[in-house]
Amino acid sequence: MEAEFDLIARYFAPLAVGERGAYALLNDAAILDVPAEHSLVTTLDSMVEGVHFLPDDPPDLIARKLLRVNLSDLAAMAARPRGYLLSLALSGDQDETWLEAFATGFGRDQDIYDVVLLGGDTLRTPGPLTLTLTALGEVPRGQALQRGTARAGEDIYLTGRLGEAALGLFVRLGQAAEKLPDLTAGQLDRLEAAYRLPDPPVQLGPLLPGLATACLDVSDGLMGDLGHIANGSGLGAEVEVTRLPLAPEVRRLVEAVPERLQDVVSGGDDYQLLFTAPQEKRDAVERLSGDSGVAISRIGRMTQGDSVRLLDVQGRDVAVAQAGWTHF
Amino acid sequence: MEAEFDLIARYFAPLAVGERGAYALLNDAAILDVPAEHSLVTTLDSMVEGVHFLPDDPPDLIARKLLRVNLSDLAAMAARPRGYLLSLALSGDQDETWLEAFATGFGRDQDIYDVVLLGGDTLRTPGPLTLTLTALGEVPRGQALQRGTARAGEDIYLTGRLGEAALGLFVRLGQAAEKLPDLTAGQLDRLEAAYRLPDPPVQLGPLLPGLATACLDVSDGLMGDLGHIANGSGLGAEVEVTRLPLAPEVRRLVEAVPERLQDVVSGGDDYQLLFTAPQEKRDAVERLSGDSGVAISRIGRMTQGDSVRLLDVQGRDVAVAQAGWTHF
Repeated sequence: MEAEFDLIARYFAPLAVGERGAYALLNDAAILDVPAEHSLVTTLDSMVEGVHFLPDDPPDLIARKLLRVNLSDLAAMAARPRGYLLSLALSGDQDETWLEAFATGFGRDQDIYDVVLLGGDTLRTPGPLTLTLTALGEVPRGQALQRGTARAGEDIYLTGRLGEAALGLFVRLGQAAEKLPDLTAGQLDRLEAAYRLPDPPVQLGPLLPGLATACLDVSDGLMGDLGHIANGSGLGAEVEVTRLPLAPEVRRLVEAVPERLQDVVSGGDDYQLLFTAPQEKRDAVERLSGDSGVAISRIGRMTQGDSVRLLDVQGRDVAVAQAGWTHF
Repeated sequence: MEAEFDLIARYFAPLAVGERGAYALLNDAAILDVPAEHSLVTTLDSMVEGVHFLPDDPPDLIARKLLRVNLSDLAAMAARPRGYLLSLALSGDQDETWLEAFATGFGRDQDIYDVVLLGGDTLRTPGPLTLTLTALGEVPRGQALQRGTARAGEDIYLTGRLGEAALGLFVRLGQAAEKLPDLTAGQLDRLEAAYRLPDPPVQLGPLLPGLATACLDVSDGLMGDLGHIANGSGLGAEVEVTRLPLAPEVRRLVEAVPERLQDVVSGGDDYQLLFTAPQEKRDAVERLSGDSGVAISRIGRMTQGDSVRLLDVQGRDVAVAQAGWTHF
């Protein structure tokens, strides 16, 4: 393995092209100009081998997932992403081929999301490969969305489809036969891909101010994260199982195997946006979905009280086993 | 150990008081308003137990060192620090007492440097305790200092005293009797303290634009870091041993034991500022030193060519064994 400077120059400096303030990663720190009347938005997430990903996961997908989980946090605050810093603690199991693929993954997502690498740190660890990414974005001043600002009677919306990453983890762990009966190989592949590489609606976040009253990204399970909106707002919430956005095979599965419904509503790694909006905005939300190309489902409503409930087709409570899922 | 949310609420949310955009660490991301006509400056550094610090180092000093090495990078670009994000990957060896002391360390330095915790991530690792900190600061637009912009004939300045952390590491490792003969217990304690807790001149950085033409912080050894200024500027550099700022006992040591001079000029962890300035600014630099209370020593000059030389009292070259010191 090359020395740190050579490694940075070869694999990472090309990712910093396009932002003058990254100084080709040669300076101590990076500069970012935030436009007038905008605020900086920043977030940080870490991933550890064996905890958040598996040692034989493809390095390009590890890189892209790390970036995307952070961009998802920016989107939840309505911020447009600008750039990121990376801490890369190598365990010694990563060779040049691994590094090249890892950097290639960042390059692909940089093109998709219009972000650049601004700086970081490369080091050795006697422990597992450990990654930390800090993402930086911008939002017009005063427009950032928060999670504790929903009002009673407002609708609850969820982007994309629910629970596919949680089910995909069963595939990844070789538990498909036991946990996901009757799904085809193609369906299982699709679920595993959803676990390996989330597809957060990064471009939708900046379009939500004016419509959404509260927002977060679902990373630790729908019901737990909805609890954050409800608790922060001093309210309760109701979600209807029949309104959850589920692929047909997932819907059949959760109807046949109740434990899988628990996985779908409490599992992690969805990285979809969960937001509230006043009922009079229903048409506007529908138009936003069409115009953005992001599916947005109305799944329930905010209520008085403090209970966060999941209701079946008859309006009866479905017990939710876990309050939320956590890597911690 | 408590769950992640409780742990954050108890130990870290108090560190986020004072910055509304940190949302008491309850949101997905944090907001920071950069003043008009200013740029954001950001940097990231990681520390791993057993590599960058020792398992029995006091947790408050680990926290403060992690923050200070990042603030040093901001200072080198003339930025004023504003806040930071923290990734805390706990190994399981850290109990509540450890966490409380760790958070207390951040609190102390937050008061000293006028920064707040903006956000972060808390997680578990099967490996060693791993810390990553991202620091955010601000600089008037166009005033950020860079490292590759020195000119031939300019003076080279160094703040503070050199090599004390590198020598202090010998104390920390129990090698004082062998490596640091004839120093008193009090002198050894002072060196060890310099290793454990650097004292970067954070307040000096924002005062350097208009005087300094190139700047960086010495973290990987004076001669190696001076090489970055020289190479980046397409120049050479000369440093005079007799002009190096050394404590009297360190000066006696390096004159008696030539290997210790190598440690002083090539060792890491100084976290002092190294900058260049035109000769006609000598009076202004001297006034800046007096006004800021930071010692600033003129140690050499930038030259034509590409050699970075250390000269003894007779003007002869002193061979420098290592190009620089690295944790990598």
